[in-house]
Amino acid sequence: MTAPQDVLAQLYATLLERKQADPKSSYVASLYAKGLDSILKKVGEEATETVIAAKGADRGALIRELADLWFHSLVLMAAKDITPAEVGAELAGRMGRSGLDEKAARTR
Amino acid sequence: MTAPQDVLAQLYATLLERKQADPKSSYVASLYAKGLDSILKKVGEEATETVIAAKGADRGALIRELADLWFHSLVLMAAKDITPAEVGAELAGRMGRSGLDEKAARTR
Amino acid sequence: MTAPQDVLAQLYATLLERKQADPKSSYVASLYAKGLDSILKKVGEEATETVIAAKGADRGALIRELADLWFHSLVLMAAKDITPAEVGAELAGRMGRSGLDEKAARTR
Amino acid sequence: MTAPQDVLAQLYATLLERKQADPKSSYVASLYAKGLDSILKKVGEEATETVIAAKGADRGALIRELADLWFHSLVLMAAKDITPAEVGAELAGRMGRSGLDEKAARTR
Repeated sequence: MTAPQDVLAQLYATLLERKQADPKSSYVASLYAKGLDSILKKVGEEATETVIAAKGADRGALIRELADLWFHSLVLMAAKDITPAEVGAELAGRMGRSGLDEKAARTR
Repeated sequence: MTAPQDVLAQLYATLLERKQADPKSSYVASLYAKGLDSILKKVGEEATETVIAAKGADRGALIRELADLWFHSLVLMAAKDITPAEVGAELAGRMGRSGLDEKAARTR
Repeated sequence: MTAPQDVLAQLYATLLERKQADPKSSYVASLYAKGLDSILKKVGEEATETVIAAKGADRGALIRELADLWFHSLVLMAAKDITPAEVGAELAGRMGRSGLDEKAARTR
Repeated sequence: MTAPQDVLAQLYATLLERKQADPKSSYVASLYAKGLDSILKKVGEEATETVIAAKGADRGALIRELADLWFHSLVLMAAKDITPAEVGAELAGRMGRSGLDEKAARTR
């Protein structure tokens, strides 16, 4: 079985490949062809669906919506040539400084 | 250096610990104390900020917003006792079936 | 010509009627039949699309997205039996107190 | 008592005036000074809060969130010099054509 943490790296690699593919060949290739705004609409949509699922009682539905949100975050990252490692480094930097408290200072 | 993929697992473990902590001890502990709706507001807020940053020219700002979005997704997961492995398994299941095309069939 | 402010009241009245209609008879009737979560997804989706359009250069597109956002807000209000007058009264109450400054005090 | 539909027009007029005001003089003046992205963040935030409130049991909270969403929609319109009449005309155009069914055709 593939360790869960490798899934993001593998998925990201697959998403990068799809940037060159025929728009008719897959859902992701068609998203890239439609352009950035279409990807952003999906990020917003999946975030709303995550919120709605979290207010409901179906745990599996929430897992699926979180997966959709991460999936489309990765599509956005691939579209913008931002790697999971860059986002990971940003998160690690925050953890480093006094637990997670940097976030509090930064936010407001 | 910590591999980027391990960051999510470490961060998730830290977030789980904060669920027991004094609300005044950290940003995350205070979020848990305020309850699910406060966490969901942050998920929605960070998704919007990701969309706005993606429409702008500052690559670093987009990386920071994506980190914020993943961070608060993980806070939500910790609040709901959903593990990164469960979301990863959901993503892996999609990748397995004919590249990423299952998503297209599922969505509409 | 109908004054623009009457449009909301007329639209709301029409939306209320559609709550009883055959789900196959119109877009709105089908939204009601699908239930609250479907309406909420549209509210979130149209808000994201408004944000995206506002970052673009097409003024007409922004007007259309704002109309979509108001439209689905009204659908939600009809679903929850909240009238435009109730939302208007809430807005009027804020205006009354020292211009719009009450909002600042209330928010944070 | 002011008719509810006049509230939007009055509020919009007030919001237009605030565009020239000292940023320190009111919440809205400070939002304009911070720029478009700050206004868009509020639109996204209030949409999420509307969704969350609609999933809860507090009717008054939902009315307040809807008022916040409309309020910040109007701030965005004032920032972009789009009038409520223009959004109203867009909504009226949709109502005209076969009830509300044009929306269904337009959307997908």
